This record gives sequence, C-alpha cells and structure tokens, in this order.
Amino acid sequence: MTRIVVALGGNAISRAGEAGTWEEARENARSVVAPLARMASKGTEIILTHGNGPQVGNLLLQQEATREVAPLPLDALGAATEGWIGYLLQQELGYALSRSGVLRPVIPVVTRVEVSGKDPAFAHPTKPIGRYYSDNEARLLTKQRGWTMVHDMARGGWRRVVPSPHPQRIVEGPVLRRMLEEGFGRRMVLLLAGGGGVPVVAKAGGRFEGVEAVIDKDRTAALLARSLGADELAILTDVDHVSIGFRTPRERRLGRVAASQLRTYLEGGEFGEGSMRPKVEAALSFISDGGRRALITDAEHFAHALQGTAGTIVESRAPDKRRASVVR
Amino acid sequence: MTRIVVALGGNAISRAGEAGTWEEARENARSVVAPLARMASKGTEIILTHGNGPQVGNLLLQQEATREVAPLPLDALGAATEGWIGYLLQQELGYALSRSGVLRPVIPVVTRVEVSGKDPAFAHPTKPIGRYYSDNEARLLTKQRGWTMVHDMARGGWRRVVPSPHPQRIVEGPVLRRMLEEGFGRRMVLLLAGGGGVPVVAKAGGRFEGVEAVIDKDRTAALLARSLGADELAILTDVDHVSIGFRTPRERRLGRVAASQLRTYLEGGEFGEGSMRPKVEAALSFISDGGRRALITDAEHFAHALQGTAGTIVESRAPDKRRASVVR
Repeated sequence: MTRIVVALGGNAISRAGEAGTWEEARENARSVVAPLARMASKGTEIILTHGNGPQVGNLLLQQEATREVAPLPLDALGAATEGWIGYLLQQELGYALSRSGVLRPVIPVVTRVEVSGKDPAFAHPTKPIGRYYSDNEARLLTKQRGWTMVHDMARGGWRRVVPSPHPQRIVEGPVLRRMLEEGFGRRMVLLLAGGGGVPVVAKAGGRFEGVEAVIDKDRTAALLARSLGADELAILTDVDHVSIGFRTPRERRLGRVAASQLRTYLEGGEFGEGSMRPKVEAALSFISDGGRRALITDAEHFAHALQGTAGTIVESRAPDKRRASVVR
Repeated sequence: MTRIVVALGGNAISRAGEAGTWEEARENARSVVAPLARMASKGTEIILTHGNGPQVGNLLLQQEATREVAPLPLDALGAATEGWIGYLLQQELGYALSRSGVLRPVIPVVTRVEVSGKDPAFAHPTKPIGRYYSDNEARLLTKQRGWTMVHDMARGGWRRVVPSPHPQRIVEGPVLRRMLEEGFGRRMVLLLAGGGGVPVVAKAGGRFEGVEAVIDKDRTAALLARSLGADELAILTDVDHVSIGFRTPRERRLGRVAASQLRTYLEGGEFGEGSMRPKVEAALSFISDGGRRALITDAEHFAHALQGTAGTIVESRAPDKRRASVVR
C-alpha cells in the first residue's frame, strides 16, 4: 500500500486576483481535491498538508484593522488558519471522497512543528507578511511591537518580516505515526501541519514556546513524509513542471529526473529563492532520506504525474534510458 | 478505565473584564488544565471540548472592521477558533501533562457536528453574536447579508442573532470512537468540537453544507460523551455548584443529586435559559442515555468533585441516604 504526503499551496485556495471570498475558496479547493479522491479510491493512504500565506495575511490585516480587540500572535493566527482551511478541505475533500465511494473522514489536526531557537533565521527575518505600512507606522510598530520592518522599494512601503526557521520535528509526529501503523491511514485522511505547522521552540521540562515565525510548508511536508514513513511526496503548485533556464531561451521543463541531476541544477542556481527552490529542496531531502519518489506539478496534471506521464518526477536513481528525462 | 468528556466554558479562556490578550488566555488556560493533568496521571482517558463565545465574537469584530478582506462565514470562523484555542490548550495542557509525567500529546481535531435543516431554531434565531449596530447599519446588514437583527433595549443597539440548533451527530464520531476502542485514549488527549463543533446540514450524496449557526457547547459535550462511550461528563463553568432558588432567600446549592430530582427542578423552571439550563439539560441527557455520572462545577473544585466532595454531581439513582444530597 502506498502512503503519500500531498502538499497544497496556499494559493491553491486563494488565487491571485480573486477577492478571497469563501465561495472562491470552495471552488478552488474543489478542483484540487478531485485527484486525491481518485487516489484514495485505489487504496492509497493520503496525508494532506497545505500552505496559508494569503490566508494568514488576511487574518493579520483584520487583526490590525481595529483596536477593539487585542491582536493574537502569529503562531496563534497560524493555528486559526489550520482550523478554517482544515474545515474547508474537510468539507470539499470529504464530499469528493464520498462520491468516489471512499468512506474515510478527513481529520484536520492542529500540529506543532519544533524549530531550533538557535536557527540563524531568527537573526535574519526574511519572510514578508501582512500589509504595507508608511514610514511613521513602521517606526511605531518597530518600537511598540518589536517587529522587524523592511522597505519595499517597488511598492514604496514598509512590510513586516518574520523568520523562516527550518522545521526539526513534528511535535505530535510519534502518535500520528502510531495511528498510521495501526491502519488508520486507510480509515481517515489526516490533514496535518497546515501553513507549515505552528512553530514552537522546546524549553526545559517539556514546555514548548510558540514563536512568531513562518515555516516553509514544503520543508514541513518533506519532514512529515519522513516522520510518517511515507513512500511518496507530492508538492502541488501553480506550474505543471519544474523548469531549468526558467524564462530564458534555453528553458527546459524537467520530467523524470534523478535526484543527483536535480541537485546539480539546484547548486547551479537554477531555482528561484522564494518560489521553486524550497520545493526542489524539499523533494531532494525526502529522496535523500529514503523516499521512493517526489512529484512537483499542479493539480490538473497530478493524476498523470502519479502514472509517470506528467509533472516533474524526482527519483533516487537515474530514470530508465528508454524514457525521456525531459518531456515536451 | 474511566473515560471522561470535559467541557470548558469559552469564558474559562477569556474572562469578563479582561482585554482578551494572548497572555491572559494562556494564564486562564493554565489554571484550568492543572486538574486535567492530575486525572490523566491516574490513567483516566480525557476527551476535552470547549466553548468559543468571546473568541468567535472577537473574530467577527475584526472581520467587520475592514473592507480590504472578504469576511468568512460563521461556520469557518468557528473552525478558526477550533484552531487557535486548540493550539492554546495543546500548549498549556501539553505542558501540564508533561510535568505530571504523562506522555500523551494533545490532539486538537476540527470537528463537524450535524444539525437538522428542519430544526425549529432556524426559523427562530436566538443566539446574539458580535457587536452592536445602529439602526441604519442594522437595516443595511439585513438587506445586504440577510442577517436577522434584534434590538437590545438596554444597550440601545441592534445585534445579529443566529440559530442555535440541536446537535444530532458528530460527523467524525465513528472513526474517533474507533481510535478510542483501539487504545488511543491512553496515548493522546483528544480535543474535539470546540465551540460546539462546526454546524453542518447533511445534503444528498454525502455532502455537508455549513450553516451560520452556533451549537450550544454543553449539548455537544453530552453528544460527544454518548458517541464516544464516555463514563462521565464534566461541565466546567464559573460557579462551583448548581443552585435552586438562585439569588432568592431560599437559594440552595445542589451537591449529589439524582437525575429524576434534578429533572423536577428543571421542569419547575429553576434554571436560567442562557446560563445553567443548557448545562443541566446536557447532564440529564447524558445520564438518561446511560452515562454513569455528570459533574457541574468550576475548575477550582473539579478535583474534589471527581472525588464526590464538591460540585454538583448528577447520578441516575438517588444518592446514598447517609450522604447529604445538598451540601453547605
């Protein structure tokens, strides 16, 4: 039986240019869950995770819009998005499963992910979140709330940046793995660590302290896959293939590719920091930890990618010579 | 082994008069979780649920405070509070458990609760939520959003009211019960159906439609206890006993009380609609469905209530004559 961790981008739920309404989110989710239901109907164990970039940004905007209510810290807001996006996917994937005759409820679990307090990311916050502020506002927020602000030349405003530390451990991982070992992966679809999971730092005596940071959800997906003994990792994004020479005349889309080859491309600086690079790194770290296969594609091509006929498919060994390693 | 469902009031987390900050919520949660950790260290299986009245009210306020972001419907906001309150309790109860030497992670699950589309509550919304509005705002919201508004004489403003239908079924109940049957109640503390659970109505073909309603969390707690085969139900509120003749010269606090006697008091109109009545009804429905014991008390007296020496303890049979049925 195959066990797969599937990571959905936060923009699979709220797309650029949309107003971000609940109805839009439902429509978007619906188009993403269809291939998952088909996989489940073939018996595949699915563990789902998702991003929350646009959604936590919206919550932050609302938090800052009124002084009537005390704002929650970023870790708690991340947990709030685990709640509502979890419910959205529970509803839409639940219905798709039911139509495919699969009697597995979707179980969204609020999941904490341990990061190291010594992660260099804490000294160099890089992840911009929330809205743009004026010079005065930025000064005030730095003073009053201790935020790190960076100036965005292009937009002419200031934005809060938070650290993006590496995920070290799924805090609730061992008991979740035990559930899978006892067959619950065929009785439910676990929905875990939304938004990369709630980042916490371990303190003395078994205490965890929440931190105002954002963990890259693709890195968390790779850690989930490893911690839960998954065979495959699928990262669903808004392009159907990974490309090298992206937006240059020498652009080539990668189909089946050996991890060693992909690592060479990565080290050659082929992939953009904020976009494809973390996905490629997540795929490579999963394979180097013994994973069978990692896919990077979009929802539309996901079913074909599973059959090996679309998307970028990363494997530990070089692909069969008779098949093209680069398609189209 | 005893299995107990414990219901925490939403005001156990955000207390009246507080600013509602995260630090306050953590402090409040800390004082509530201590007796739970002691119970767990004795081997009791604990399933936790909680209210979300003040918290969902705050989220609503923030949602309405800006037009930059499309507001989410009430069912999604309820799920968001399941997320962040779940994380809060996961952190605080998790630490208390760890200090008590109990190696059980807290697993918050976003839980849907089915209500009937024919529930008379839908024709008569009664539960006030969110802030107060002016005459003009109320007119506009009724027209644009289809909200039902009621005028509050005392406060001189309008407030949105939503239905409070009866919970019929825990949608994710069967697989959660299966987990408990396979011993996971001793490996984790499940945190379920926060805020009474996300209310959904069953449609054709296995689809559930979210509804803008609020399910009474004590009713959901009784349903959880029944659905998950719990022996006991504990409803933690802000008073240590149920009283009859409340705030009259004949006020008497109830200690150990037979369900039949308590029902007589209920039918005699002893308990206030928005306060003690739903708790008493939840306790009685749990006992009449075969539950062993239901407790109503506050966090401070909870440990003694479990030993039978404090709080209101509802049992199916009349209490032992040698013990007082009314204490103090």
